[in-house]
Amino acid sequence: MKKIQFKGGTMLNPVPVVLVTSKNSKGDTNVFTVAWAGTACTKPPMLTISVRPERLSYEYIKESMEFVVNLPSEQLTKKVDYCGVKSGRITDKIKDMGFTLSPGIEIDCPIIQDCPISLECKVRSITPLGSHDLFLAEIVKVHVDESLIDKSGKIHFENAKLINYCHGEYYPMTTQPIGKFGFSVQKRK
Amino acid sequence: MKKIQFKGGTMLNPVPVVLVTSKNSKGDTNVFTVAWAGTACTKPPMLTISVRPERLSYEYIKESMEFVVNLPSEQLTKKVDYCGVKSGRITDKIKDMGFTLSPGIEIDCPIIQDCPISLECKVRSITPLGSHDLFLAEIVKVHVDESLIDKSGKIHFENAKLINYCHGEYYPMTTQPIGKFGFSVQKRK
Repeated sequence: MKKIQFKGGTMLNPVPVVLVTSKNSKGDTNVFTVAWAGTACTKPPMLTISVRPERLSYEYIKESMEFVVNLPSEQLTKKVDYCGVKSGRITDKIKDMGFTLSPGIEIDCPIIQDCPISLECKVRSITPLGSHDLFLAEIVKVHVDESLIDKSGKIHFENAKLINYCHGEYYPMTTQPIGKFGFSVQKRK
Repeated sequence: MKKIQFKGGTMLNPVPVVLVTSKNSKGDTNVFTVAWAGTACTKPPMLTISVRPERLSYEYIKESMEFVVNLPSEQLTKKVDYCGVKSGRITDKIKDMGFTLSPGIEIDCPIIQDCPISLECKVRSITPLGSHDLFLAEIVKVHVDESLIDKSGKIHFENAKLINYCHGEYYPMTTQPIGKFGFSVQKRK
């Protein structure tokens, strides 16, 4: 496989694409789309999101030091795109998209009911990097739609129809995994 | 959609799953699998990977302050799993997997030729978080397989057959995107 070289670029792919809700001290809420996100730690559970300082959500999150990461399903893709393109400064995106909010439990920031999974997050640090600031946050509560949970309590993410983002495009998840963690060394019975 | 609440957990999904190569000062190379990774900044292009301190790669990367993120394609999934389960302390995973290495350009760390895309990274900071340390790094060079690049120079990630990781399982990417960034507000001709 012959390789062609390019200068450094944001080519980690595929990445998650999530709807982030936040609330300022006046009680105004906003939603915006983030693809620059990743899991940062298992214990305690932490993640990062990167946000441009010119974003309205940047102000809200910096003020409250809280946000919710809502994982959208496939049928919300157009809304996900809209919330990434439009600014909360010019329109109420939550109203535009008809999202139903419900209160967080550990934090004073709403989750989006329309999303199958939501993660309540408390910001631990903010690091300016250039175009974006890195928000490192602890995941303090998780909401999962009951339709994804079987009788034994197992969460079936494969039924959530999540999406991902790859080089400027949104992709649906497939429902058939190739393998489970550890399958390469599992002994056949 | 009724929600069930859980305590905080690493439930951001799907996430990327990548093969990270590193080299220590003696010239030993190692590879391991990372799913706790994300894009952190556009300008300059940066990403994060999170690594447990007990990992051999942790030592190598801390020593050299360099690593390569190699994006694996679907047919490498079993090897990706193996490199996440086995330790470089007990076996030479690069040899076990038959990976072909070639030298980095901006850094003294090899890329995996078998992967369609590789990102050379220079570490900018290391932050201990708990089970994992967060490595923030700048992407200084990108290698893309020439078969993915069309005549106009556009990179076709949809042909790379990348994989992602969701709640303990590996999934293939689909080749048909739902939409492109901005499609929700695009005017019809």
